[in-house]
Amino acid sequence: MNFSSKLLETAVAEFAKLPGIGQKTALRLVLHLLDEDKEEVERFSHAISKLRNEVQFCEACHNISDQAVCEICASPRRNHQLICLVEDTRDVMAIENTSQYNGLYHVLGGLISPMDGVGPSDLNIDSLIERIKNTEVTEVIFAVSATMEGDTTIFYLNKKLKDFPLKISTIARGIAFGGELEYVDEITLGRSIATRVLYESSIK
Amino acid sequence: MNFSSKLLETAVAEFAKLPGIGQKTALRLVLHLLDEDKEEVERFSHAISKLRNEVQFCEACHNISDQAVCEICASPRRNHQLICLVEDTRDVMAIENTSQYNGLYHVLGGLISPMDGVGPSDLNIDSLIERIKNTEVTEVIFAVSATMEGDTTIFYLNKKLKDFPLKISTIARGIAFGGELEYVDEITLGRSIATRVLYESSIK
Repeated sequence: MNFSSKLLETAVAEFAKLPGIGQKTALRLVLHLLDEDKEEVERFSHAISKLRNEVQFCEACHNISDQAVCEICASPRRNHQLICLVEDTRDVMAIENTSQYNGLYHVLGGLISPMDGVGPSDLNIDSLIERIKNTEVTEVIFAVSATMEGDTTIFYLNKKLKDFPLKISTIARGIAFGGELEYVDEITLGRSIATRVLYESSIK
Repeated sequence: MNFSSKLLETAVAEFAKLPGIGQKTALRLVLHLLDEDKEEVERFSHAISKLRNEVQFCEACHNISDQAVCEICASPRRNHQLICLVEDTRDVMAIENTSQYNGLYHVLGGLISPMDGVGPSDLNIDSLIERIKNTEVTEVIFAVSATMEGDTTIFYLNKKLKDFPLKISTIARGIAFGGELEYVDEITLGRSIATRVLYESSIK
């Protein structure tokens, strides 16, 4: 692209480094910011820089937090016997949005993926073991994506945790609520028949 | 969404103000920035704030520029007798990318659109008239979108400029190069027949 201004070119290049943002979208966003008030743009720029410089990760669960220990881990109203293992912050937010879970979390910071060079040592697993040893946890729930990486991570952690006096569970997999049977993929449908549950327990 | 951090929430809210960026995309972008080095994020944040605070608009053509007069208007190698009227900076870039035009530009800063409350006084029209009066311009080329707003703007400006000793032209409209005839919309196809050009002049 032919930029008439070096400042413009730099700003567009910075935006285009973001995932899923190409040159054209970057230009559109930058031109939008140019139309905004200076204060508005300063607020945008400041929010990002402040976040990166001041953000903390909870000492216990590694979730993004404003304090050393996050609100969930610090809350006396949560069930401290349950730990839900998730890949990242987004999963914590997704589960919190359901309002169906009242335990704690542990953010692994990724999933085991030999293809991407992510091994167990890259994840927050040691701190998980420490938590299990030193706290009152009685159940660990795997809430990871139903992918190869998710399954590998569950398999690894399951072996790692099997000597602790723990209940280990995974979130239920099967056809989605509201999903039409004919459009469900074969593997999901096949597994959902194989792992069917008694009607009584499915509606509790 | 349930944010575990106020800093995170603020940054996501700022990103989500950008056009075409929803909450989920904003969150993805912000989490990406959190994974980056501090210096990288500082560079991003600085580039935006610097652009907004230091950008200038060319005194002659109103294009985004680093100096008081942009490179195009200042260049002795461009044809100063031609002025191409465009809606915004993106159009200047698009035309510059073709390498087919060697004249100057005039950025209107929008198109006349009564529906959006944009009238002639909101556009850079007075400065255009001044330019035509005081410089050696001999031809004005309308290079605006083939929309209702574009046509309205051309109609208005054409009346405004008709008393000047000027050649007034618009960029050619018709079927796109490489376009299959059967997929061209009816209006474009109909107009392209009505405004057909002699074969000799179409290949020059």
